[in-house]
Amino acid sequence: MLTRILAALAALPLFFLAVYFTPPWVLPVALALLSGLAAYEMLHNTGMVKCPVLLTASVLLAAAAVLLDYFLTLPLIAFVMPAAAVIFTIGIFSKGEIPWQALFGAFFSAVFLPLAFGAIGRIQRMDGGDALILVPFIAAWGTDTCAYFAGRFFGKHKLAPIVSPKKTVEGAIGGVIGCILLMIAYAFAAEAIWDVTLSLPALAVLALVGSVISQIGDLSMSYIKRGLGIKDYGKIMPGHGGILDRFDSVLFTAPFTELLLMYITVVL
Amino acid sequence: MLTRILAALAALPLFFLAVYFTPPWVLPVALALLSGLAAYEMLHNTGMVKCPVLLTASVLLAAAAVLLDYFLTLPLIAFVMPAAAVIFTIGIFSKGEIPWQALFGAFFSAVFLPLAFGAIGRIQRMDGGDALILVPFIAAWGTDTCAYFAGRFFGKHKLAPIVSPKKTVEGAIGGVIGCILLMIAYAFAAEAIWDVTLSLPALAVLALVGSVISQIGDLSMSYIKRGLGIKDYGKIMPGHGGILDRFDSVLFTAPFTELLLMYITVVL
Repeated sequence: MLTRILAALAALPLFFLAVYFTPPWVLPVALALLSGLAAYEMLHNTGMVKCPVLLTASVLLAAAAVLLDYFLTLPLIAFVMPAAAVIFTIGIFSKGEIPWQALFGAFFSAVFLPLAFGAIGRIQRMDGGDALILVPFIAAWGTDTCAYFAGRFFGKHKLAPIVSPKKTVEGAIGGVIGCILLMIAYAFAAEAIWDVTLSLPALAVLALVGSVISQIGDLSMSYIKRGLGIKDYGKIMPGHGGILDRFDSVLFTAPFTELLLMYITVVL
Repeated sequence: MLTRILAALAALPLFFLAVYFTPPWVLPVALALLSGLAAYEMLHNTGMVKCPVLLTASVLLAAAAVLLDYFLTLPLIAFVMPAAAVIFTIGIFSKGEIPWQALFGAFFSAVFLPLAFGAIGRIQRMDGGDALILVPFIAAWGTDTCAYFAGRFFGKHKLAPIVSPKKTVEGAIGGVIGCILLMIAYAFAAEAIWDVTLSLPALAVLALVGSVISQIGDLSMSYIKRGLGIKDYGKIMPGHGGILDRFDSVLFTAPFTELLLMYITVVL
């Protein structure tokens, strides 16, 4: 637990540095790196993809998609289709070495991961983005923390025992309630720091949806780990595991936050 | 071969009816049906997905995405992310019955298939869409036919023997050349029928890219079939197999055509 807290304390300044105190190209480049590393963890560390050509191509596609989307604002189809074509072409000419499962895993990594990481960069570019960019992180990591403590104190009924044996229904509910309270507290912080007024009902909706989705994200990544028989995706962060272990919930919360922000007014 | 030709002759009028002689909502609804059926073939007929809940959800997602995209012009993220969330949630609460491969297959079906079928509808809505909508079909089916005959007459070197033992390098090249010639002939037909002037160099680019991509699409769908040990995805069209057997090349050519049409001027 101590390693875990120390590692988090070391990573947080880096996070704030990339988001607030560096030239605007640093965040998308950092997100592209994270997306590529996450694809590497998903395909190589799990043992899913053994062919080095397919692995390299998928990692590059996952990283490049974030950059293309951010700097050229290409339509999504402009990287989904080329990604599919590259991945299948490698399969076709692999002399039957690559199993079909590996191709679908590569497609998922090259499409879902950059879309999810890229959402963080797209939120930053919105009106009030400096304040909004923290919303998915507060939703995801706030839910994690509140669910952990709510589970410890009140946990009785198992939530999804096969996927994640320690999680309880009480923890999940506590995570949602805690997340909503944290998000309302954040409205006051955002007002004080950036002089940005955020709508409390809108934030409550973001917190509710974000919290539920973050738990789905967490369990989803656990489901894949469980299926492939591994404990962690990597060990890049001491005590936290790999990028996919640390960002599992954010990967789902960030794009859903982006999606909600397109349709509801949060910044007043 | 006779069954094959007769089935094609029966299907073609239906195709022209849906594209040119029905109210505008018929084409997207037909594409949504095709997308849902293709997802069913990909997941059920291959034996990839055994869980009926996941199968039903994936088929509905694949069909709904075409409709949402066409009628609400939602951003792509608005169906990719909910699709991922629904598919993983079904996995999480399946009590470990669904293998991870099935989830990735479901994600591919619910994202790639509607994106590909939807491209046909999006092309029709472009300027000169009545003429442009035939371009991916001419590229895909023209390449198929020309490659078949070029292969029969000149075929010597195998192209991808493990995936598709009958295809040759000579056939592939003949397919590309034939496709370019057909597309140039089509320019004159389009001028005569719709009074639409199409740029010949631009059409040649569309034919070249479309023809190469259509062969990748054809081999990609064969790769999956081969991996799963099946001969055809279905038998909905006598002599042709399933939707995925007939539309394999179009599935890749249509979205690439759409993508090229965004950046090059074809209609003069």
